[in-house]
Amino acid sequence: MPTTLTKLINQQVRLAARPVGLPKAGDWQLTEEAVAEPAEGGVLVKVLALSLDPAMRGWMNEGRSYIAPVGIGEVMRAGGIGTVVASRHPGFAVGDAVSGIPGVQNYWTVPAEQVARSGLAKIDLRLGSVPQWLNVLGMPGMTGYFGLMDVGQPKAGETVVVSGAAGAVGQTVGQIAKIKGCRVVGIAGGPAKCDWVVKELGFDACIDYKAQAPEGVSSTKSRWDAVREGLRQHCPKGVDIYFDNVGGEILDTVLAKINLKARIIICGAISQYNATSAVAGPKNYLSLLVNRARMEGIVVFDYADRYPQAIAEMAGYLKDGRMVSREDVIEGGVAAFPNTLNKLFSGENFGKLVLKVADY
Amino acid sequence: MPTTLTKLINQQVRLAARPVGLPKAGDWQLTEEAVAEPAEGGVLVKVLALSLDPAMRGWMNEGRSYIAPVGIGEVMRAGGIGTVVASRHPGFAVGDAVSGIPGVQNYWTVPAEQVARSGLAKIDLRLGSVPQWLNVLGMPGMTGYFGLMDVGQPKAGETVVVSGAAGAVGQTVGQIAKIKGCRVVGIAGGPAKCDWVVKELGFDACIDYKAQAPEGVSSTKSRWDAVREGLRQHCPKGVDIYFDNVGGEILDTVLAKINLKARIIICGAISQYNATSAVAGPKNYLSLLVNRARMEGIVVFDYADRYPQAIAEMAGYLKDGRMVSREDVIEGGVAAFPNTLNKLFSGENFGKLVLKVADY
Repeated sequence: MPTTLTKLINQQVRLAARPVGLPKAGDWQLTEEAVAEPAEGGVLVKVLALSLDPAMRGWMNEGRSYIAPVGIGEVMRAGGIGTVVASRHPGFAVGDAVSGIPGVQNYWTVPAEQVARSGLAKIDLRLGSVPQWLNVLGMPGMTGYFGLMDVGQPKAGETVVVSGAAGAVGQTVGQIAKIKGCRVVGIAGGPAKCDWVVKELGFDACIDYKAQAPEGVSSTKSRWDAVREGLRQHCPKGVDIYFDNVGGEILDTVLAKINLKARIIICGAISQYNATSAVAGPKNYLSLLVNRARMEGIVVFDYADRYPQAIAEMAGYLKDGRMVSREDVIEGGVAAFPNTLNKLFSGENFGKLVLKVADY
Repeated sequence: MPTTLTKLINQQVRLAARPVGLPKAGDWQLTEEAVAEPAEGGVLVKVLALSLDPAMRGWMNEGRSYIAPVGIGEVMRAGGIGTVVASRHPGFAVGDAVSGIPGVQNYWTVPAEQVARSGLAKIDLRLGSVPQWLNVLGMPGMTGYFGLMDVGQPKAGETVVVSGAAGAVGQTVGQIAKIKGCRVVGIAGGPAKCDWVVKELGFDACIDYKAQAPEGVSSTKSRWDAVREGLRQHCPKGVDIYFDNVGGEILDTVLAKINLKARIIICGAISQYNATSAVAGPKNYLSLLVNRARMEGIVVFDYADRYPQAIAEMAGYLKDGRMVSREDVIEGGVAAFPNTLNKLFSGENFGKLVLKVADY
C-alpha cells in the first residue's frame, strides 16, 4: 500500500442527534480522521459519489424497521460508487469501480470480515455512468424494477400510476411500464417535472399535484382536487397499478380510483417522513375491500440475488435509447450532505439526487 | 297454486331514509302487501330466517361499492333461508329448502327472469340446520373460508389473528385455521365471548379488547393497550395472518406486530361503519413496507362457483365435530329487524346473528 494514502484525510458526516421533523444542522456532526489502511483481506475505497434517498430519513429514527437505525455518533449510512485505492482482498484490485454502502465519507475502509456482507460489488462503467449506477442501475432502479414487475405484475394495456414520477424510482417504474405496454400516468410537483416526464420519459400524462395551489398559499384542498381531476381525465379506465412513493393525501386520492383486483405497491411515503404527528393512514383503505385489491410493501434488498438480471435488462434499455435517466448531481463534497439531503423533502431535486464527492 | 296463498299478508321492512351514523327507527318503514303469486317460470318462497350482517350498513349508503345500494323505499336486502310454497319453475318444487337474498319480508316472489341471477339455490338441511346455513354453511362461512384460504394462504405453524372472533366470519376463520395447523388468537369483546372462543372453538387464546376499560367509562387508550399486551403475550412469534373484521384501532395495533411477508385480509371494518366523520385509515400501514407484507380485500361473491366445494368441506367438519357453530337467533319476525340489526354494532350478539321469521 502506498504510504501516501495514510496522509489523506477522511471527512465524515455523523449523526449527532435524532431529528424531530425535518433534519437540521445540529443533527449532524462533521468529523475528520486519518484514512485507515485496509488490514489483510480488506479493501479501501475512495468514494466518488453518494446516493441521497428518502429512505435515509427513516434510518435516522430509533426503532424497529427493515434495517437497523444509524447510531448516534456513527457515520451516516449512504449508498455510493467508488474506486478501489488499496486492496488486500483477492477479489478487488486497485482501480476497480465498485458500488456499496460507504456512508457519508470520502474513504471507506472495508475490513475483511465485512467485504462479503457489505454489499461491496464491482461495477462496469461501460453499462452506465457513475450517477446512472446510483439511479437506474442502482438501488432506485432495482426498487422500481422489482416493485413493478414482481409485486405489480403489469399486463399490457393496464393503467399504471406512479407518484414521485420525476424521482429516481418513479422514472424507472414509468419507463419500464411503458416498455411493458401499459398506459402510464405520473404524478409530480410542478410543470417542469411534469413536462419532462411526458416529453422525455414518454409517460402518457403527468399530473401536477402542486397545480392550482395559489403561489405562496398552501391550499391543500385544491391540490388534491387537481390530482382527483387529473386521474379522472387521464385514467379513463381506472387504475390497475399504483406505485406509491409519497403516501398521504395522494395515496388516498388514488385509492378512490382503483379498479377491481388493483395492485398498490408501497415503496415509500416521503410526504410523511418528517411528520411530527402520527403518520396519516389511508382513509380510503376500504377501497381495497370493495375492489378486492391488494396493497403490498417492497424492500429492494429482498431481490439482491436477481440484481444482475435486472441490471442487464436496464442497461440494454439505456443503450438502445428506450430508457433515459436524469440525475441531479450536487457538487460540494461530503460537507454539503446535510443541506443536499433536505432538497429531497422540499421536492427541489429534479431526478435522482446524487452528491458528487470526488472527480470521476 | 293454492288460492289460500293469495290471502297471506307479506310484511316487509323498507329503507325509508339513508342513516347518518347508527340506523334509527325513522330510517325504516314497515309495510304490508298481499303475497304476489309467481308467474310462469317464477317461484314463491316463504322466508324462515334472515341473516343479519355488518355489510348491511354499507348497503344502506349511497355511492359506489361492490354492490348497488338499497334504494329508498325498497325492501331492505338480506340473505335468508326459506321454503318453496309455490313454483312454476321446473327446478324448484313445493317443500324445497332454499337459500338466497329474499330481503326483509315474509314472502319472496322470484320472477322467472330473476331465478338464475337471484342466488336462489336448493340447500340440504341434512348438512346443517337453518341457522347453520346462514352461518358456517352460508355467506359468513364462505367469506371466512375463501378469505383465509385463498387470500391468507395459511401454512401449518403460522400464527393467525382474527378479530370479531365470536362473530359469524370470525368463528369460521379461526376454526379452519386450527384445522390447518396454525396457532390461532382471537380478538373479541368481553370475557364470555373470549371464554367461548377458547373453550368451545379451540382457539389458542382470545384477547378481550374491552378489558381494562373501567365500567361505564370509554377509556379508549386502555383498550388498545390490552390488545397490544395480548398480542405480545399470545403471539410470541409475531403475526403471519390477520383476518380483519373490525378496522380502526385494532387493525393499527395488529399492524405493529406483523411478520415479514404477513398477509392481512380486509373483510370488514365494523368499527367504522357508523362513523359520521371520515373512516380512520390505518396509521401503521407503513408496516406493510417494512415487512414486505400484503393487505388485500375479499368479497365472497367472487368465489360463488366454488361454494359447493367449501360447503362440502365445512359440512364434513360439522359432522365429525371438528367444527362447532353458534348462532344468536332472535325471535320476533320481520318487524324486529331494525332493533336486531343494531345489536351487531353494539356487539350485543353472541355468534352469528339470525332473525327467525317463521317456524322451521
